[in-house]
Amino acid sequence: MAESVKAFGWAARDPSGVLSPFDFSRRPTGNRDVQFKVLYCGICHSDLHAIKNEWGFSTYPVVPGHEIVGVVTEVGSKVQKFRVGDKVGVGCLVDSCRNCDQCSNDLENYCPKLVLTYNTVLPDGTVTYGGYSDIMVVDEDFAIRWPENFPLDKGAPLLCAGITTYSPLRYYGLDKPGLHIGVVGLGGLGHVAVKFAKAFGTKVTVISTSVGKKKEALERLGADAFLVSRDPAEMQAAAGTLDGIIDTVSAQHPIEPLLSLLKPHGKLIMVGAPEKPLELPVFPLLMGRKTVAGSMIGGMKETQEMIDFAATHNILPDVEMISMDYVNTAMERLAKADVKYRFVIDVGKTLKKAE
Amino acid sequence: MAESVKAFGWAARDPSGVLSPFDFSRRPTGNRDVQFKVLYCGICHSDLHAIKNEWGFSTYPVVPGHEIVGVVTEVGSKVQKFRVGDKVGVGCLVDSCRNCDQCSNDLENYCPKLVLTYNTVLPDGTVTYGGYSDIMVVDEDFAIRWPENFPLDKGAPLLCAGITTYSPLRYYGLDKPGLHIGVVGLGGLGHVAVKFAKAFGTKVTVISTSVGKKKEALERLGADAFLVSRDPAEMQAAAGTLDGIIDTVSAQHPIEPLLSLLKPHGKLIMVGAPEKPLELPVFPLLMGRKTVAGSMIGGMKETQEMIDFAATHNILPDVEMISMDYVNTAMERLAKADVKYRFVIDVGKTLKKAE
Repeated sequence: MAESVKAFGWAARDPSGVLSPFDFSRRPTGNRDVQFKVLYCGICHSDLHAIKNEWGFSTYPVVPGHEIVGVVTEVGSKVQKFRVGDKVGVGCLVDSCRNCDQCSNDLENYCPKLVLTYNTVLPDGTVTYGGYSDIMVVDEDFAIRWPENFPLDKGAPLLCAGITTYSPLRYYGLDKPGLHIGVVGLGGLGHVAVKFAKAFGTKVTVISTSVGKKKEALERLGADAFLVSRDPAEMQAAAGTLDGIIDTVSAQHPIEPLLSLLKPHGKLIMVGAPEKPLELPVFPLLMGRKTVAGSMIGGMKETQEMIDFAATHNILPDVEMISMDYVNTAMERLAKADVKYRFVIDVGKTLKKAE
Repeated sequence: MAESVKAFGWAARDPSGVLSPFDFSRRPTGNRDVQFKVLYCGICHSDLHAIKNEWGFSTYPVVPGHEIVGVVTEVGSKVQKFRVGDKVGVGCLVDSCRNCDQCSNDLENYCPKLVLTYNTVLPDGTVTYGGYSDIMVVDEDFAIRWPENFPLDKGAPLLCAGITTYSPLRYYGLDKPGLHIGVVGLGGLGHVAVKFAKAFGTKVTVISTSVGKKKEALERLGADAFLVSRDPAEMQAAAGTLDGIIDTVSAQHPIEPLLSLLKPHGKLIMVGAPEKPLELPVFPLLMGRKTVAGSMIGGMKETQEMIDFAATHNILPDVEMISMDYVNTAMERLAKADVKYRFVIDVGKTLKKAE
């Protein structure tokens, strides 16, 4: 039996969340696996939750990272989609049961036995490690073919932020030209939601607590309108105008004002994950036959579709490129929402063992 | 100009909610109106809210009643659907703007200018009066043709309880044979929801706080299964089994246990109207791409479709027939949920002026 492969990355060891160099191993490349050298990895807000155990299920050490792109270095004998040298992407999931209704319908992300890219304990007791590391080994079914001439560095965050916003726009029918879509929160998820919604031909209104984001939303991201959620007059004037809303906010926040913005039969889709329950007023749901629903990343087939769509429409997140040893500072800044709009670690050039 | 028509009914005069005889007038039968003699009127839980001003928008005197059936006594010159002697039904609405997107799409129930059958103040300052009265005058567009040989007495409650449950089962795609549907609360709405869901060919589980309703749900109403919502073991065993749930409960209640019962992509549809916000946990929405949504009665086209479907499938509410002078006692019993499952007032035979 082949030996495991030495790997090196950065891990958090405890809920302080401080990341530091970490030696570990990856499984040997199986028949259906691809091994690849990690070039870039985006920093998702989930990474911050995980390293600090804010969701309560972290298993230390935690090597975060699920917006991973790289170049294939080895393929198993039965691999069909990839060759050595191919560009490849891995998002939030690296395995699933492959037998359930969800898996059978290309919805591996909703499989009850979903294996997350990091922080999932496998049946053999090992824990999955993410993309803040030099190499990855993954079943080819959970790897994305990277489109030709599509930037690896800026594109990496699409593997989580992209599919997280693309999938609900599609599934809930909010992707039709002429619809009017709201995007709540202008961060890593929100700014990508704006770009996809615009690419689908919808009119886009950004809804934010901060008027300071107005100019940028309209001029840089191409939104059509901007609402300050804390301005009752502005919100009232826009009541009943939106067909759907993608709510990316994971802090506690009131949803009644958002329901008011919806037309009858409108849909408020949550993709952020507030820890505590939100207040749900029922009358507005009844009076306008409105929907509050959720969505979580996407299946592998749809993730491939998303990245191909992004390449075709030149949709790229706005990123700040950082070196590996800046990651702890980046996490502090991320906690303060001090980034426009996604950090990406230049893993390939900056992840080095100490001499 | 024609004179208004004398009418007589029972009204509440103040938030005590006590109903007593009341003389008033109806508009003369216009070109597009039908006038009809009221034979039966169901007692909806909304009637109880309205007479006690529990929703805060009652205008006294309140003549309740929006599950009204009768026989046409006069038709306007341009009326096309009805002749004198026809059986007719009127539900929750008697007019709408006729021009908005909702009206244009046969969704008059979501028209912002919806005129409710009772307790709506019209532009001329008059107030609509409902079916606890001897006659009604209504635009033919808001009257339902009653199916041949379909009982008027037992059928009356379908005009609110029926359409309120039929419409969401249809709109949210919960009407496909083989689906597994939950019905929360076994009252006026819930017991009709069970009957429609069964007629659509779905498997039906009734979810109730009261184990005492189990035998009846299974044996009399034909439900396939019964869950006691306060029994965590029973609820846990049924986790992830339902495609959709119709929640008819208007008291405060936790929805997290209901969300747990849903399969991925399942839908929890609220048709009851709790006054205060419910607690909405967001994680379950995300993890299973689940939906919480609302629905409120239905449009006129769909109400006609519902009553025709009910006649074809012999779907009739279980009713307790009462006389007009029993109405205050009936309201007291309704407040205690002491009715199986809907009171219907025999208006035609028992509404009489004092000698």
